[in-house]
Amino acid sequence: MNRILYRKSELAHDQLLLTDRRATHILQVLKPALGDELRTGEIDGPLSSGKVMRLDAQKVLLAISEVSQPERPTLDLLLALPRPKVLKRLLPQISAMGVDHLYLTNAERVEKYYFDTHVLEPDFYHGALLEGLQQSGDTCMPQVEVIRHLPSFLSKTDFPENRWLLHPYASQNLLDAELRSERCLLAIGPEGGWRSSELELFEGLGFQQVSLFDRVLRSDTACISALGIAVAKGELYGRD
Amino acid sequence: MNRILYRKSELAHDQLLLTDRRATHILQVLKPALGDELRTGEIDGPLSSGKVMRLDAQKVLLAISEVSQPERPTLDLLLALPRPKVLKRLLPQISAMGVDHLYLTNAERVEKYYFDTHVLEPDFYHGALLEGLQQSGDTCMPQVEVIRHLPSFLSKTDFPENRWLLHPYASQNLLDAELRSERCLLAIGPEGGWRSSELELFEGLGFQQVSLFDRVLRSDTACISALGIAVAKGELYGRD
Repeated sequence: MNRILYRKSELAHDQLLLTDRRATHILQVLKPALGDELRTGEIDGPLSSGKVMRLDAQKVLLAISEVSQPERPTLDLLLALPRPKVLKRLLPQISAMGVDHLYLTNAERVEKYYFDTHVLEPDFYHGALLEGLQQSGDTCMPQVEVIRHLPSFLSKTDFPENRWLLHPYASQNLLDAELRSERCLLAIGPEGGWRSSELELFEGLGFQQVSLFDRVLRSDTACISALGIAVAKGELYGRD
Repeated sequence: MNRILYRKSELAHDQLLLTDRRATHILQVLKPALGDELRTGEIDGPLSSGKVMRLDAQKVLLAISEVSQPERPTLDLLLALPRPKVLKRLLPQISAMGVDHLYLTNAERVEKYYFDTHVLEPDFYHGALLEGLQQSGDTCMPQVEVIRHLPSFLSKTDFPENRWLLHPYASQNLLDAELRSERCLLAIGPEGGWRSSELELFEGLGFQQVSLFDRVLRSDTACISALGIAVAKGELYGRD
């Protein structure tokens, strides 16, 4: 945990009383002294600093003061729903890297039973995403949307100007793709790829096909690699 | 398994008799007919094609013919030994992405007990690396070296011209780092980073510090992201 995160509703007069595993982490790992300042943050709110006011066997009381308001990530991810085990592993990595909208979608090659997983229950995926935020130190929780029918979702959604579709045989590499504005959407298909009818649908909506490597990667490896490139491009965009 | 891999010693008169989980995979997943050609490959040897000659309940006989000789990857990875659980998860991803030399090194912030893991036994890590090769379809097994003392290793090793050290506060982003020849070495530190004495050592050997994101990532996420960028850069290098 590089930042202790809390919900706004947990604050009372700018004080935060922790009694759960965050308290355990503070007491057993961070081991602060009274008066020390810890990095804290409000979920979907400001980065803050928490001054240690009280330390008990199981309780920590922090006085919270706001430090700065983080900007939301500018990258959206449309991901064909991977198998539950893979999704579970990916979620904290996705939030750690910084994603604004996370669309988990059905596709012709997505097995229907993947949608029955407990990983898609909000309580579960929020916990997994929170883990990634506490690692990366961000407070911006990805906005998750589970999509059962891709064509109707695509037809009714406004996408940013940069729309990339990861496709193994595209001639343009994601590394070379031009970023025309800071915000972009990256679409990543299922194991086995998109069907040609799906590819046509994306093409009709102006998605640009980009490739990654001349290798067949596991979908989670491909996802992290592609996100890495997209996030780094986004961070550099502002500096050019 | 996108390619069935075998050792040269398993071939007899260009025939490969499989009775282990590769046979199970062929029989239960690929379900070929007699005469079908399967993608096969010799570990550290040619890509090949295996014609199905016999299919029994537990046995598959393939007639192997060489297709092409793959080029070895041009990327070397020097990785501070991560905790065993993380290493185990990383190994197939590393080989799938394509690494030539994989140096797993001690560092001041690497816990000594990480070296006691069974994951560092050659039989174990070969199996994990093989899994990644069967996924990506490559035959080039990373050459693993376990390094107990980093300074003496660094002083006696010839590194390629491009030597990058991943460092969170470097002003240059890996994405922008100039690739002056196809071969490069990427060095990735432990959780908590390199010590300043280690940084000086790398600097003295001409390692260029490069950063990834303005975020603290888990070491496996950082490793896959950085590898992804380095591999993509390497693949594009030949095309420029």
